[in-house]
Amino acid sequence: MALVVQKYGGSSVATIENIQKIAERIIRTYNSGNDVVVVVSAMSGETNRLIAMTRELCGPSCGRDYDLVVSTGEQVSLGLLAMSMTALGYNARSYLGWQLPITTDSNHANAGINKVNPGKILADLKKGAIVVIAGFQGIDAKGTITTLGRGGADTSAVAIADAIKADVCEIYTDYEGLYSADPAICKEARKIRRISYDEMLEFASLGSQVLQTRSLELAKRCNVAIHVRSSFSEHTGTLVTKEDEEMEGILVTGIVYDKSEAKIAVIGVPDKPGIAAQILTALSDAAIPVDMIVQNAGQGGLADITFSVKKSDLPQAAVITNQIAGNLQAKEVVSDENISKVSIVGLGMRSHTGVAAKMFSALAFNNINIQMISTSDIKIAVAIEEKYTELAVRVLHEAFCVPNPAAVPAGSTH
Amino acid sequence: MALVVQKYGGSSVATIENIQKIAERIIRTYNSGNDVVVVVSAMSGETNRLIAMTRELCGPSCGRDYDLVVSTGEQVSLGLLAMSMTALGYNARSYLGWQLPITTDSNHANAGINKVNPGKILADLKKGAIVVIAGFQGIDAKGTITTLGRGGADTSAVAIADAIKADVCEIYTDYEGLYSADPAICKEARKIRRISYDEMLEFASLGSQVLQTRSLELAKRCNVAIHVRSSFSEHTGTLVTKEDEEMEGILVTGIVYDKSEAKIAVIGVPDKPGIAAQILTALSDAAIPVDMIVQNAGQGGLADITFSVKKSDLPQAAVITNQIAGNLQAKEVVSDENISKVSIVGLGMRSHTGVAAKMFSALAFNNINIQMISTSDIKIAVAIEEKYTELAVRVLHEAFCVPNPAAVPAGSTH
Repeated sequence: MALVVQKYGGSSVATIENIQKIAERIIRTYNSGNDVVVVVSAMSGETNRLIAMTRELCGPSCGRDYDLVVSTGEQVSLGLLAMSMTALGYNARSYLGWQLPITTDSNHANAGINKVNPGKILADLKKGAIVVIAGFQGIDAKGTITTLGRGGADTSAVAIADAIKADVCEIYTDYEGLYSADPAICKEARKIRRISYDEMLEFASLGSQVLQTRSLELAKRCNVAIHVRSSFSEHTGTLVTKEDEEMEGILVTGIVYDKSEAKIAVIGVPDKPGIAAQILTALSDAAIPVDMIVQNAGQGGLADITFSVKKSDLPQAAVITNQIAGNLQAKEVVSDENISKVSIVGLGMRSHTGVAAKMFSALAFNNINIQMISTSDIKIAVAIEEKYTELAVRVLHEAFCVPNPAAVPAGSTH
Repeated sequence: MALVVQKYGGSSVATIENIQKIAERIIRTYNSGNDVVVVVSAMSGETNRLIAMTRELCGPSCGRDYDLVVSTGEQVSLGLLAMSMTALGYNARSYLGWQLPITTDSNHANAGINKVNPGKILADLKKGAIVVIAGFQGIDAKGTITTLGRGGADTSAVAIADAIKADVCEIYTDYEGLYSADPAICKEARKIRRISYDEMLEFASLGSQVLQTRSLELAKRCNVAIHVRSSFSEHTGTLVTKEDEEMEGILVTGIVYDKSEAKIAVIGVPDKPGIAAQILTALSDAAIPVDMIVQNAGQGGLADITFSVKKSDLPQAAVITNQIAGNLQAKEVVSDENISKVSIVGLGMRSHTGVAAKMFSALAFNNINIQMISTSDIKIAVAIEEKYTELAVRVLHEAFCVPNPAAVPAGSTH
């Protein structure tokens, strides 16, 4: 008896058989008395196939015709999913972005949604229809098809859920939900029942690839509850929702790790203002994002500056840093790909002291050396030698997450 | 210095390389000072791939979502062709059916065009743009995407040419144009420079698969000149246009053959009214089209009825005919797949007598027996034993088409 938005994509709609299974699943939700609006993304592999063809013709910037080509991926899965429900005798009503419309800006290949018109969706629901909508696409003020960028179907689903005031936006993934740690590493990891938008944003940016950051920011702004769950089971997943007292009572919700970063250290630069800024400005001009940054005052008026970048950006970042370091007459520049970042995330940190101390002690007790530290009010991240990643996750989970009243054991059905 | 509609499809846009070649060809036409509107159909194989997926989900009748899925084939080739011209520095403006719009009825998978709105096309041409439009698709009054049925992009091109009052509608094919006979059979076959709509309709329905019948009927009704020519050469092809005195002066424009039909003969039925009607009604009820029909009064108050159907329909047609023949107490029913149909087509037949006599004499002189005859005012078709097909084509070409002032030798550049 709820108004539910369900988003399916990737492997959920990879084959005709999977599409039929999803159709049956949607119908079960509908037959339980719910109003159902489905958002669908392209069959897995299809978007890459389409992008590859455009690349052959015009490289990375193809203008509006890129969106015209790439948006067909969702159009195909939309039609196939709707017709499979029609074939089962249900009234499925399909809509492309421009047919509702979902209006966006004209930033082709990476457009932002301005507005979802809820009129047709609500009218169809009133008639008892199951509404199916192509994700990832919209139409701009000139009547041109636009696309939202990779993972944009999540954003479509949240924007649609907001527009029709849905009770929940269910995002179907290959995962059962979010865990207090990677269950492949940590046997004690438990499924997180409820998590706040801010915690989830930290999880997302710290390496959990479950939800697109942009869709989360929109969900937080519009207060849309997101239920992350699996297409392949009926288990309850993880509810991402606004924070409440129960959540604030939990010190650490989960442990996340990320092996995609590398470290660059500039050793022995003059310890005076503006040095770090010079390096970071040059990297920023080259569109290389920097994550963690530390600066140590060294001996004899010299300092060391250390920061992390994506491993894929390391070669270019090293060249740029070496140039600047030469100008600064630094002693040397050292790169290290052999690091990983392990983080603890939890709303409770805001109101509790001693969390960092407990974290660093637990690591030290296991002889894991901390190379860099970065914090926000709800997370503490440390860079460590990569080979200690799994041990650090287990140690920190043991220290902070067991027992955890907001979590259930991995594999549990609730 | 003309307003030209060019339609490309199938193998012309089969690969990225072919699309680039077509883009260069269009740009050559544009740079010669012409206003160019391009209509494009799907990359070859793509429509079949899309249809196959829909078939798995809902068999032959999938409703409006069939059109949603299948129309993406044209959307992809539209975007790719437009972006390849943009990449070459030209202002190419792409339009889907709904963006112009091209309005149609709601007969999904086989819609008929109601109107092409020329406004955006003409405005873009005025700005110096090359306009590219997806063929085969439109939008109905409910805002739903429709498709026109197989070969529908030809019809789109003709309707667009009519709406913008183009000077010519060029249909690009794998052929150099239309020939007075199949050049693979008849060395003397010549390219037909000009042919009337009615002759071309006879050619099309008699087995030449160059143009869709529906597009020809529209071109005739709206008086749109069609230039059938090859994507792979710059040679002038065949102009399909309204008839004039020059065409009427030509007795036979060309010879066509068709090996796709089979013959059923019902021997020894009572020679009284209504017998043929019974058989034909039963076949019509089973949606089996009948082409040629003859009835011979036989001996002793008995008649023979002979007719032709597509070879693919023969098994079902034979079953139905045997049932009726049993009720009529016919002597026997004989099927024969071993026939072909050879036809002569020409406007001049209307005003000249003796054409049939000359045709039958030529065949008889070569010992080719005629099994059935069917005529219209501009064609005479005969069914003969299949093995004589090639001989009959050569004999009739020799009798009627050499020399032919409206034709040029095969392989000529003009």
